[in-house]
Amino acid sequence: MNEPLERLVEQFRRLPGVGVKTARRLAYFILEEPQADVDAFVRAITEAKAQVRHCSICHNLSTQDPCEVCRDGKRDGTTILVVETPADVQALERCRGYRGLYHVLHGVLSPLDGVGPEQLQIRSLLERLRDNTVQEIILATDPDAEGEATALYLANLLRPIGLKVTRIARGLPAGGDIGFVDDVTLAGAITHRQEMGGN
Amino acid sequence: MNEPLERLVEQFRRLPGVGVKTARRLAYFILEEPQADVDAFVRAITEAKAQVRHCSICHNLSTQDPCEVCRDGKRDGTTILVVETPADVQALERCRGYRGLYHVLHGVLSPLDGVGPEQLQIRSLLERLRDNTVQEIILATDPDAEGEATALYLANLLRPIGLKVTRIARGLPAGGDIGFVDDVTLAGAITHRQEMGGN
Repeated sequence: MNEPLERLVEQFRRLPGVGVKTARRLAYFILEEPQADVDAFVRAITEAKAQVRHCSICHNLSTQDPCEVCRDGKRDGTTILVVETPADVQALERCRGYRGLYHVLHGVLSPLDGVGPEQLQIRSLLERLRDNTVQEIILATDPDAEGEATALYLANLLRPIGLKVTRIARGLPAGGDIGFVDDVTLAGAITHRQEMGGN
Repeated sequence: MNEPLERLVEQFRRLPGVGVKTARRLAYFILEEPQADVDAFVRAITEAKAQVRHCSICHNLSTQDPCEVCRDGKRDGTTILVVETPADVQALERCRGYRGLYHVLHGVLSPLDGVGPEQLQIRSLLERLRDNTVQEIILATDPDAEGEATALYLANLLRPIGLKVTRIARGLPAGGDIGFVDDVTLAGAITHRQEMGGN
């Protein structure tokens, strides 16, 4: 009945986490917006897509190549933290708890979805280790089944090279409530308990 | 740090129901998509915005003016059903329970937000009544405080003209459970109880 509207709804439905009702709401919102706002939205999409590229070293998203982190001489070049996605890098940069370099895998091992080591940025990670500058690899894939399997695969691949391979800590989240945290997190927090230092 | 990406996140945040985390997820999704898919997305937005207009009669969204419903000679021209938004028209057309015409107010009365009768398509509704074809107005604004207030305002405005003014029914939703339905709906369903015909 209204083809351009239906096509727009279909396009919004392709976005992650957007069902048909949300897609309709978004489409109507766009159609009721002033033309200038719609133009700004379209321009933001087009420009971001045109200007943002993968860094050829760490494969994070950046407008520059190498990216800001890889070019920053003040970062600790002896440590590479391995994550699944560019969003993970952004979260880690926001928390300001890390001053080394990154490597973005762009996914996790997932045999059922046809994602093997060749589909991830693993070969490029190995290439970065060739000049022996890097001494520690921190595996920071997500603490779920696929993230753990990917971390295990990488640990087995990297340890024989003689590198220190660590896994980002699991445990209770800050501000968490032991009475309400899920079982897996709680059991893991006990398994990975750490000795307290005195003072 | 990554301006085009941040601008895109900001643009997604303007959409209704999209918080900062969802906006980031959507922005990363777009950046990781093939260029052809991003082009299709942008084209759908641009074309829908360019081609979809308000019908000059009922003010619903349409690629044609007058819209398909207003031009359809088989629709019952003696009845106008008044709704808040174009999405409401779409929902009503989908349920196939109505064969008359529509009128889209494009909002509800909301004095606190500065929305009075002049900001809604009320004057254009009155103009449609001039030739005395219309005999019934069905008020189908939402069953919330503002929707009820708008329905009451329109009823008081339209009844003196000598029109039949009705309100869409409130009651238990199909498949609802009396034990779990909210109090207002339940009380309303008793107040608006209807006599059952025998057979």
